Amino acid sequence: MSGSKNLPHVIIIGAGFGGLRAALSLKNAPVRVTVVDRNNYHLFQPLLYQVATAGISPEEIAYPMRAVLRSQKNAAFRLAEVLDVNLQEKRLHTDHGDLNYDYLILAAGGETNTFGIQSVAQNGFGLKSISDATAIRTQLLKMFELAVNETDPEKRRALLTFVVVGGGPTGVECAGAISELIRLVLSKDYPTFDLREARIILLEATQRLLPALSDDLATFTLGALKNKKVDVRLGAAVEGFDGENVHLKGGEQIASHTLIWAAGVRAAGLLQHIDIPKGSLGRALVQPTLQAKDHPEIFVIGDAALVENGAVSPYPMVAPVAMQQAVYAARNIVHLLKNETPEPFVYRDLGSMATIGRNQAVAMLNGVGFQGFPAWVIWLLVHIMQLIGFRNRLVVLINWAWDYFFYDRAVRLIQQSCDDR
Amino acid sequence: MSGSKNLPHVIIIGAGFGGLRAALSLKNAPVRVTVVDRNNYHLFQPLLYQVATAGISPEEIAYPMRAVLRSQKNAAFRLAEVLDVNLQEKRLHTDHGDLNYDYLILAAGGETNTFGIQSVAQNGFGLKSISDATAIRTQLLKMFELAVNETDPEKRRALLTFVVVGGGPTGVECAGAISELIRLVLSKDYPTFDLREARIILLEATQRLLPALSDDLATFTLGALKNKKVDVRLGAAVEGFDGENVHLKGGEQIASHTLIWAAGVRAAGLLQHIDIPKGSLGRALVQPTLQAKDHPEIFVIGDAALVENGAVSPYPMVAPVAMQQAVYAARNIVHLLKNETPEPFVYRDLGSMATIGRNQAVAMLNGVGFQGFPAWVIWLLVHIMQLIGFRNRLVVLINWAWDYFFYDRAVRLIQQSCDDR
Repeated sequence: MSGSKNLPHVIIIGAGFGGLRAALSLKNAPVRVTVVDRNNYHLFQPLLYQVATAGISPEEIAYPMRAVLRSQKNAAFRLAEVLDVNLQEKRLHTDHGDLNYDYLILAAGGETNTFGIQSVAQNGFGLKSISDATAIRTQLLKMFELAVNETDPEKRRALLTFVVVGGGPTGVECAGAISELIRLVLSKDYPTFDLREARIILLEATQRLLPALSDDLATFTLGALKNKKVDVRLGAAVEGFDGENVHLKGGEQIASHTLIWAAGVRAAGLLQHIDIPKGSLGRALVQPTLQAKDHPEIFVIGDAALVENGAVSPYPMVAPVAMQQAVYAARNIVHLLKNETPEPFVYRDLGSMATIGRNQAVAMLNGVGFQGFPAWVIWLLVHIMQLIGFRNRLVVLINWAWDYFFYDRAVRLIQQSCDDR
Repeated sequence: MSGSKNLPHVIIIGAGFGGLRAALSLKNAPVRVTVVDRNNYHLFQPLLYQVATAGISPEEIAYPMRAVLRSQKNAAFRLAEVLDVNLQEKRLHTDHGDLNYDYLILAAGGETNTFGIQSVAQNGFGLKSISDATAIRTQLLKMFELAVNETDPEKRRALLTFVVVGGGPTGVECAGAISELIRLVLSKDYPTFDLREARIILLEATQRLLPALSDDLATFTLGALKNKKVDVRLGAAVEGFDGENVHLKGGEQIASHTLIWAAGVRAAGLLQHIDIPKGSLGRALVQPTLQAKDHPEIFVIGDAALVENGAVSPYPMVAPVAMQQAVYAARNIVHLLKNETPEPFVYRDLGSMATIGRNQAVAMLNGVGFQGFPAWVIWLLVHIMQLIGFRNRLVVLINWAWDYFFYDRAVRLIQQSCDDR
């Protein structure tokens, strides 16, 4: 490493899909790479909902960054939270010291966005981190433990009402997984229960589910969720949640202690501490080359970026965009090193998919729609192949296979919350 | 169940080895059984040290009680923390309502005992619960992340000094596992490090390790730990730990931020809230039949019990004693139901074992000593067979096999502590 000390230093903020891919893409570039993240692992977010519904354990979708980068000689990892960035002196200020960069790839990702609804932010559950997911898992199971000893039918009904907000893939997958957790697994754990008392309500403010997919697939999803006894309500906008009642626009209330918010994402809060122009949802405005205005040495990718390419609608805040932009950012840094002009980012939409449950998913691949079992198999293959680390893949497969064949869930643990400790 | 409502009600406090075995032993008895525990899972404590050293994930050694009892028609589970017991009215007072019993099996287990050393209780780590284990895992990995950026050699040395207190099986296994985590795994994660800077110190107040095993095996263990670069200090008693320095009797100090306390156990705190006579370590004094004095309907087993059988030394506070006593308690309840006289408990010492690391363990089985690879194979088989749940067994085996062949660890996750959240 000592010899490489003089090489240009590329700092990547964030070890998500974008940051990780950017680091790997710079493997053979004449640079030193440092990935900075507040967690020491890369999190495979698409399966967070399965941790939240007791299907797999957090360790199965989190992979230590030092292990990921071990084989990459020009890359190092730094566990630290970035507090702000001094753009003039090209220096990061973190909770564990400062770091100087020549090039910066900002891949800080997104965070849950309740659009200013404070009560939801306080009393609801997001689904972006491991602690979010284990908190939901504990909540779901705790509600059943409380309900089994609750004699007042109305109180019991409230305990057993689970509200998911947001008709995108996360909301659909979460609602479907909760339904199966209850009907296939908890029904055996709580034999004295009449499970018709349990309700899963999926609230979507617009008039359809899964905007990224075709109308046919959205309709299929609606039907599949209804078959799973998920009460899907379109055109239902949440105004507040006090921890006991969900308040809908129009005055309706739903008595529930559990609200999972999958209805919005915005750029990570860190962006607010970096003095570059922002667009909607706190995203940094970048040129088609992914470079920040007036700061050609700064590249912003993924959920944190809003590319100004004159397009009608911005790129969706999803992993494929982040990963593709990561490759461009890495390539453009090499261009700059060679005094070549950087290339504008071109998004290749590979499609979108969502699983609704056992044998059921919907997928849009290169404009072709799949639904039901075929889509589910595609979903399974795509996700299992993407999971980093052969061992994790194997363990996740075993858990999935077990759940599939034995209608069981691995990890129905109620973990002590911090206050309990 | 409704028909069984009139059957005598046996409440078992604690879902540990004793409580679980007691419940299963009452499967065919003419009673209703309710297991009460503050956690909804049975924890396989012997492998906690592997969670603490990033070998396996918590979910692999915790098994939901409702799943365990699912097939047992006369048993139910209740998630609740017992606050106290009204002996006269035979009623439990819990944080989730009251419960009446006809017979009570007190299997509350043990808790970490620092023998009144407050500073150790505050700044040290116990190893009795999942949160204990994940806290240690986070601490070990955090110290390395801090050390890799620490330029002051003295501070770095303190960060990389890990002190384990207690020369019993837990202390030996913990020290050995930390040594292998560092030398076999973290050495690859932190290539820039000189790992000779990392020190593992095992402190034992008496003059030998593993009192339950023969002198030969204790000597073998001492040598094996030294080969693993564990600095074993016999006759070293801890007086205090302020979070930065371990203070030994005699005045010596060891600069370290990590003290793992495996030097003592006492009966669970709940015992103090139950008005029956206690002996040493807060254990309830019970007759040879395991019944409490003046309360023939109350049986106390495992770490919570101190059997008055005129024996020189009480039974060790280990799982086999608890499990064997559970069978006697269950059988004696049936005797009482038939107006037969209960049997006195007879302990069958099956032996004791401890693993020191890869291919190395010591075991004493029916008076025969094993060491090295044979003992390690025995340890492996015994533990893998005891793990509840085929799936858990399979997943643990995969993780072990992976670690064994690839010198890797599955779950090196630094989890946000509660304050961070």
